[in-house]
Amino acid sequence: MSFDRLQELIKAKKNPTVAGLDPKPEYVPPHILRTSLDKYGETLEGAADAIYRFNVGLIDALCDVVPAVKPQSAYYERLGWHGMMILEETIRYARAKGLFVIADVKRNDIGSTAQAYAEAWLGRIQVGEARLPAFDADCLTINGYLGSDGINPFLETCRAEDKCLFTLVKTSNPSSGELQDMIAGDRVVYQVVGDLNARLGQEDIGKYGYSRAGAVVGATYPSDLRSLRKRLEHTFFLVPGYGAQGGTAEDVRFAFDKYGRGAIINASRSIMCAWQKTGHDGQDYQDAARAAAEAMRDDIKQFVTIL
Amino acid sequence: MSFDRLQELIKAKKNPTVAGLDPKPEYVPPHILRTSLDKYGETLEGAADAIYRFNVGLIDALCDVVPAVKPQSAYYERLGWHGMMILEETIRYARAKGLFVIADVKRNDIGSTAQAYAEAWLGRIQVGEARLPAFDADCLTINGYLGSDGINPFLETCRAEDKCLFTLVKTSNPSSGELQDMIAGDRVVYQVVGDLNARLGQEDIGKYGYSRAGAVVGATYPSDLRSLRKRLEHTFFLVPGYGAQGGTAEDVRFAFDKYGRGAIINASRSIMCAWQKTGHDGQDYQDAARAAAEAMRDDIKQFVTIL
Repeated sequence: MSFDRLQELIKAKKNPTVAGLDPKPEYVPPHILRTSLDKYGETLEGAADAIYRFNVGLIDALCDVVPAVKPQSAYYERLGWHGMMILEETIRYARAKGLFVIADVKRNDIGSTAQAYAEAWLGRIQVGEARLPAFDADCLTINGYLGSDGINPFLETCRAEDKCLFTLVKTSNPSSGELQDMIAGDRVVYQVVGDLNARLGQEDIGKYGYSRAGAVVGATYPSDLRSLRKRLEHTFFLVPGYGAQGGTAEDVRFAFDKYGRGAIINASRSIMCAWQKTGHDGQDYQDAARAAAEAMRDDIKQFVTIL
Repeated sequence: MSFDRLQELIKAKKNPTVAGLDPKPEYVPPHILRTSLDKYGETLEGAADAIYRFNVGLIDALCDVVPAVKPQSAYYERLGWHGMMILEETIRYARAKGLFVIADVKRNDIGSTAQAYAEAWLGRIQVGEARLPAFDADCLTINGYLGSDGINPFLETCRAEDKCLFTLVKTSNPSSGELQDMIAGDRVVYQVVGDLNARLGQEDIGKYGYSRAGAVVGATYPSDLRSLRKRLEHTFFLVPGYGAQGGTAEDVRFAFDKYGRGAIINASRSIMCAWQKTGHDGQDYQDAARAAAEAMRDDIKQFVTIL
């Protein structure tokens, strides 16, 4: 079971955090960016080359500290197909280094289209007699606004390929409550989505008690995080909002069960851009990223003990 | 204003429909698929090449019948970066033929990530001194579950680039009501999303009375379509669910205002796969697609007169 593997990686590295790989060209140290733009010109291909080399350096520096990485598709899509090529290569490189890869794509659709997304990100594609992987991550994020027709096709691929997903339940942004906190019957909307997702995933529970249907729950609403942890006992949580968005280690401890399991906390820019604060013009980006990831791990470990 | 242009194309072609380009390899006529797989082998590159040549043929056959095409990203993503390359090329080819291109991507995120998606699909990307387009469609679909933080960054790019979007409001699938029809205060959830989207778009209304913030409203719930048309008077509608999903021309007439404006109806497989019903092994796929698009146009024109 795919979340079992993630939990075991978390335990082995004593670190329940995931490093976001959300790279914009301006996050890339100048010496790396310059080499690529000198080679390819000021083109999307040049930017993509720089970002790939930066990603490889980050993965090399982080792969024995963090259990997982989470590339955010938007930053690759904005470089067109060149960006999607290096996203494929980044996922492949990270998995080869033993990392669990969460493709943060927030996809959503119904029926055969949802199935096509699931195949794209988690599955294999039939071409003639061949069955070929495309982006081939371990896990993806989805948006459940379309109801079970929009979640089930993803779960079917998860079962077939031993993979898993996170459905957006309560997001970390200031306006998340506009829709998600509305009272709908005797629940609020995010509970409706969380309950639906839990029900769809319930037939398939791994050895640590978690189903394949995880949930995104933001660190910035710690009381919601706490109540959702109790409500959704078989739902693994991906928790954005730590750090820059204001969530603290004290807040995110509510995401974990009594064994310190069942959640992973994301940080992106604080790790990727750590070099911007050391005064060495990015020559030390690997050391800076590693130190930032270790500091985050140690911050959270003050409040969470992983059994 | 971007929806003004779409409305003018609809009027010029006397046809308020959009042809979906959601191609799976099995929708491609055998003679086209065979040529590509002979050249590239049974690979994602081969499948992508076949689909691009099929798309070009469809666009050539349809471009004086329909005002718009709607490629669905999932079917390109499942071919990995090769698929994304031909999606870029398909969008470029269709726009060069004068078609309005709706990228059906249902993207959603917040802040700088939402902005990155908007740049990817509608905008331009800064690399050094250059400002470069990536997928560069006229319009995209988004999912509003994250609230205004997840809609505003897209609208900002729409204003900067004179483009527009459709937010999922009431989708066409059987389970859409699980969340979207829940009563939330004195409204239902899809009305909450529709009202929010309308409010965010309201500052910028085109000459036919429509804002840049359109909405996806399914043909399969005609009474909801009718009430939403009254409720959201400045919201242009993209209407899926005609044909295979059960929506009829009589149902979709409710999407239009009293001038026969303000909506566009989608059909995908009935046009792309029309050749599968003629008994000519796909040699006639262009004529078959064109005839299917004309039949759909004429079916809807029984109930809708465009002024």
